[in-house]
Amino acid sequence: MLVEEALERYLSQQEGIYSSILEAMRYSLFAGGKRLRPILCLAATEAVGGKKETALPVGCALEMIHTYSLIHDDLPAMDNDDLRRGKPTNHKVFGTAMAILAGDGLLTEAFSLLTHPDLTQQVPAERLMRVIHLIAEAAGYKGMVGGQVMDLKFTGQEIDLEALETMHRHKTGALIVASVKSGAIIGEGNETEIEALGEYATQIGLAFQIVDDILDIEGTSEEMGKNPGSDKAQQKATYPALLGVKRAKEIAEKCIEKAIEALKPFEEEAEPLRALAQYIRKRRR
Amino acid sequence: MLVEEALERYLSQQEGIYSSILEAMRYSLFAGGKRLRPILCLAATEAVGGKKETALPVGCALEMIHTYSLIHDDLPAMDNDDLRRGKPTNHKVFGTAMAILAGDGLLTEAFSLLTHPDLTQQVPAERLMRVIHLIAEAAGYKGMVGGQVMDLKFTGQEIDLEALETMHRHKTGALIVASVKSGAIIGEGNETEIEALGEYATQIGLAFQIVDDILDIEGTSEEMGKNPGSDKAQQKATYPALLGVKRAKEIAEKCIEKAIEALKPFEEEAEPLRALAQYIRKRRR
Repeated sequence: MLVEEALERYLSQQEGIYSSILEAMRYSLFAGGKRLRPILCLAATEAVGGKKETALPVGCALEMIHTYSLIHDDLPAMDNDDLRRGKPTNHKVFGTAMAILAGDGLLTEAFSLLTHPDLTQQVPAERLMRVIHLIAEAAGYKGMVGGQVMDLKFTGQEIDLEALETMHRHKTGALIVASVKSGAIIGEGNETEIEALGEYATQIGLAFQIVDDILDIEGTSEEMGKNPGSDKAQQKATYPALLGVKRAKEIAEKCIEKAIEALKPFEEEAEPLRALAQYIRKRRR
Repeated sequence: MLVEEALERYLSQQEGIYSSILEAMRYSLFAGGKRLRPILCLAATEAVGGKKETALPVGCALEMIHTYSLIHDDLPAMDNDDLRRGKPTNHKVFGTAMAILAGDGLLTEAFSLLTHPDLTQQVPAERLMRVIHLIAEAAGYKGMVGGQVMDLKFTGQEIDLEALETMHRHKTGALIVASVKSGAIIGEGNETEIEALGEYATQIGLAFQIVDDILDIEGTSEEMGKNPGSDKAQQKATYPALLGVKRAKEIAEKCIEKAIEALKPFEEEAEPLRALAQYIRKRRR
């Protein structure tokens, strides 16, 4: 598959002095991720009439950033998780020091990839600058890093729906929106298209998180590759905990509807994005 | 001073949901660093005839990357240091989880700053792409992150001079070289100039490290803001340990000479770079 091959090409194992850090970085990068962010990015490029191959380095960079965030979130000082996607977490295999560095390495490599000749030879530099800025802001303290700070602060606390939404909009939503928008920018979408796709991404990002929370209650460990019930055990606020499972499912449905609605101006080029919205509604892991 | 003001402007404290992460990021960013990398970067811009103010966002990004690396290196799972520049380390003040995130936030913010309008409105995008790529490679697994991996692996081991040099070239040298080269690129230096300044940076980077090792033996805790002898206590390989203090000092002198030699093609515009080489030779902290 396109994304897997590209990830393998952009971060291949090497012999010699970098072998141990590459091994740790690759362990988590190839640990069975769904590749949601690169798939969304490439689908957005297609939706605005671009060639999806052009966006491959951007998609791979997004997956590296996502993977780094999982490695750091799992650390003993953070969520202290032993299992991720059915496998021992990075620090369980390589130790905490190496896991911190593997995360640092993936985050940094993402920005190296965003300035890779494969991109700079095909996409105007001004457009790439905008993509890099968008992704850096979405990943940083105003986005994903900020969301993880809120998550830590909220754990064990009673919070309201607004706080929960703010947290998720930062922790997972921001990078999902950046994935879709950057794909649209690479595909030379106009501002109206980029905004519409941003709205689509906001809605599926929220739906994705609500479904995630529901799976933590209803899913089996085989389906999820981790033990269900971990949110409750860690006293994390979730949508079903705040709203009940039934109401949470209704809101997730509503989000999917709004996401599909946002795609109205697009014709069949946006079919992959529509299918992704349906996949998020039905996913079991 | 130019760099301090710019850092304050680019990462100012805010009230509201980002206040706690900003506090942790700013704690280490404003903990008395020497600002060597931004100063080198700006001086290189001047050396090739550019305006040093243009390079300010790049210099600040470099300082953020340097600061993130110090926060992560000090973590309990890494060097487990309690003091840095005479102050408690980030994790001692904010806890390990927050220190990891403060580091992640600074690293990510650096790339946001490298695509800041202050830069994109003044410097051609192609030139900035080259700077971002250079800095990402120098900070990542082929540079600084890789060097920290080697440092962890070598601690407590007997290593030879070649291994020690490889480690330092990655851990500190790569970012120093990137600082100088990126300044030269921003200042529109030609390839010959960029290469000459790269050689200058390689030499002062090595000298800086050797002097650092010597200060760890000869310095006082007041001068250094940390306890001397920590390398020995941590069983770290150092230049004076491998070569003796006298020979290590001779090599540092030789590096400074070579650095000054590399500046020969430049006239008085390179005076700040020459002065920096002398500062490194004489520094006491």
